[in-house]
Amino acid sequence: MINIQKSKRSMKSNFNYDDFVFGVQPTDHILLCNYKDGSWQSPSIMPYADIKMSPMSLCLHYGQTVFEGMKAFRQDNGQVIIFRPDKHFRRFNASLERMCMPAVEQDLFIEGIKELVRLEEHWLPEEQEINLYIRPFMIATEPRLGVKVSDEYLFCIVCTPMGLYYSEPVRLKVETEFVRAAEGGVGYAKCGGNYGAAFYPAQQAKIQGYDQVIWTDAKTHEYIEEAGTMNIAIVIDDRLITPKLSTSILDGVTRSSIIQIAKDLGMIVEERKVQLQELIDEFQSGKKIEIFGVGTAAVISPVKCINILGTEYYPYTANDATMFKLKKQLNDIRKGRSSDKYNWNWFI
Amino acid sequence: MINIQKSKRSMKSNFNYDDFVFGVQPTDHILLCNYKDGSWQSPSIMPYADIKMSPMSLCLHYGQTVFEGMKAFRQDNGQVIIFRPDKHFRRFNASLERMCMPAVEQDLFIEGIKELVRLEEHWLPEEQEINLYIRPFMIATEPRLGVKVSDEYLFCIVCTPMGLYYSEPVRLKVETEFVRAAEGGVGYAKCGGNYGAAFYPAQQAKIQGYDQVIWTDAKTHEYIEEAGTMNIAIVIDDRLITPKLSTSILDGVTRSSIIQIAKDLGMIVEERKVQLQELIDEFQSGKKIEIFGVGTAAVISPVKCINILGTEYYPYTANDATMFKLKKQLNDIRKGRSSDKYNWNWFI
Repeated sequence: MINIQKSKRSMKSNFNYDDFVFGVQPTDHILLCNYKDGSWQSPSIMPYADIKMSPMSLCLHYGQTVFEGMKAFRQDNGQVIIFRPDKHFRRFNASLERMCMPAVEQDLFIEGIKELVRLEEHWLPEEQEINLYIRPFMIATEPRLGVKVSDEYLFCIVCTPMGLYYSEPVRLKVETEFVRAAEGGVGYAKCGGNYGAAFYPAQQAKIQGYDQVIWTDAKTHEYIEEAGTMNIAIVIDDRLITPKLSTSILDGVTRSSIIQIAKDLGMIVEERKVQLQELIDEFQSGKKIEIFGVGTAAVISPVKCINILGTEYYPYTANDATMFKLKKQLNDIRKGRSSDKYNWNWFI
Repeated sequence: MINIQKSKRSMKSNFNYDDFVFGVQPTDHILLCNYKDGSWQSPSIMPYADIKMSPMSLCLHYGQTVFEGMKAFRQDNGQVIIFRPDKHFRRFNASLERMCMPAVEQDLFIEGIKELVRLEEHWLPEEQEINLYIRPFMIATEPRLGVKVSDEYLFCIVCTPMGLYYSEPVRLKVETEFVRAAEGGVGYAKCGGNYGAAFYPAQQAKIQGYDQVIWTDAKTHEYIEEAGTMNIAIVIDDRLITPKLSTSILDGVTRSSIIQIAKDLGMIVEERKVQLQELIDEFQSGKKIEIFGVGTAAVISPVKCINILGTEYYPYTANDATMFKLKKQLNDIRKGRSSDKYNWNWFI
């Protein structure tokens, strides 16, 4: 049972749907649940507000923070769905386990999200392409300066409106000096440390004229792993090729969905190691190659230029590219225009 | 100029010096300084209290947090010194640069620490072996859900009393599956992510009967890097051997001090790659080998057992071991009993 205290008035009245920056405006409520003495306390949904923290809270010092990100959509018939919260739930707990943080029950996670989205669904207009970005996260709150696994945690869920994220085709640089994650590390977990560690290499790539980097493996720098904060996929002929999951690659929910959709469209899907040299050879053979990022924010982020070991190559990004078919099909499922045969849509 | 608002009464009266857990009791004040619109605001020292934060503060999501840890001591003559704050200052800024966080000025960092320690020096008793642990840290505070470099930060300094940290000889396991840091990553930075990522491997080692792990390089797992959250050093004959600094190894201040002291004692210091096979060969030759962790907390942490690739070896830890001579000399310098020829002691 979630204790609910409703906000007296909605911040929506001051929100300009036609002109806003993503991630700045929270919706009206926040779900809060504390972990103490070995168990989760009762969750509450409260009016969104700042939280009080000890400056010695372990999360501010030793990186025990984990988050998820997913979306709710209003379908054409007006109903609101949450996209694959069960898969996000499993990944959240996998991240928590790697960070020595306590698991959350499916009930707390999914019912918490549903309850919160029920309260906030009026933020989803009927007529506009706006969805609700949902951010569950957990932080270590024990106030203690020693390096230790926290005995206290706070689990929160917040939401923020998200516009139609039109992703300009991007220029990427294959990174062979800096490393995001190594096999045996925490690259597969959605812990804060992975993101902060990636800012500097991304800034360096920007200075060199690229929008983001494509990470390579820490051992040999010969295989591609992820692009910025997205998974990466390649289309050659009727094949969808994407790096195989490992402890250094995030198990993206959009990645998983796009793979399934590609199979359903009759494509051959290859989840395997992808060598830089293979890409170079394909480009040099003059083949039509599509490369794109795959993630929650943009769904598909087309790559128009890729720098591999100092040489720029130009993947195919015209309107008839396969990636846009995949994107449209995923969108059609979410909006209720196409059959949802894997039960990805969870109605609130 | 630091604005100072003194606490009305000290929490020291309720603090039991004879029985306390490290890191739980803050002293009476906290230094706070905000970064906004591209510059640092005026710093304040305030009575220690909780801070208010947005649940969307970037540090709770993307790991932009950096800290330092150093100590203040009361010397035999009653004067209070801070140990090598200049070296901690340089490392703090090196960490901040890697995490795309704004540098702090030496004045803010060192004068801030001095001013705070002046207010708290009554926490350092004349008669007991208590020192003051000083924790400067910076966190990203911009409230924003998108993955981005923060435009707002909070720099804080807090202190906590620390007892004579007697370190029982430890049992360590050489880790060849999990990875703390890779070359090209953030291992050399004191960012939160490095610590949270190390908890799980350490827990697994504990289950197997070891106190901590010794990390090996992410590429080959053939070379040792660090021990738990300390640097590692080895003494064979009159040689002090320690892994050479790299982007995956922390530039420890105690490491640097012990290296200098070893040189001053006429030892040969070798900063270089240290292969597991070399250690195995030395143990198998029957040589007397000392292995120890080197860090701010325990200064020297003797290793009594090391598991290398499944076999346990037993380094030398008797009272006449060289590591204890190094530790005593470092302590003598801090306490004013031995000449401080490198100006490591900064008087408040």
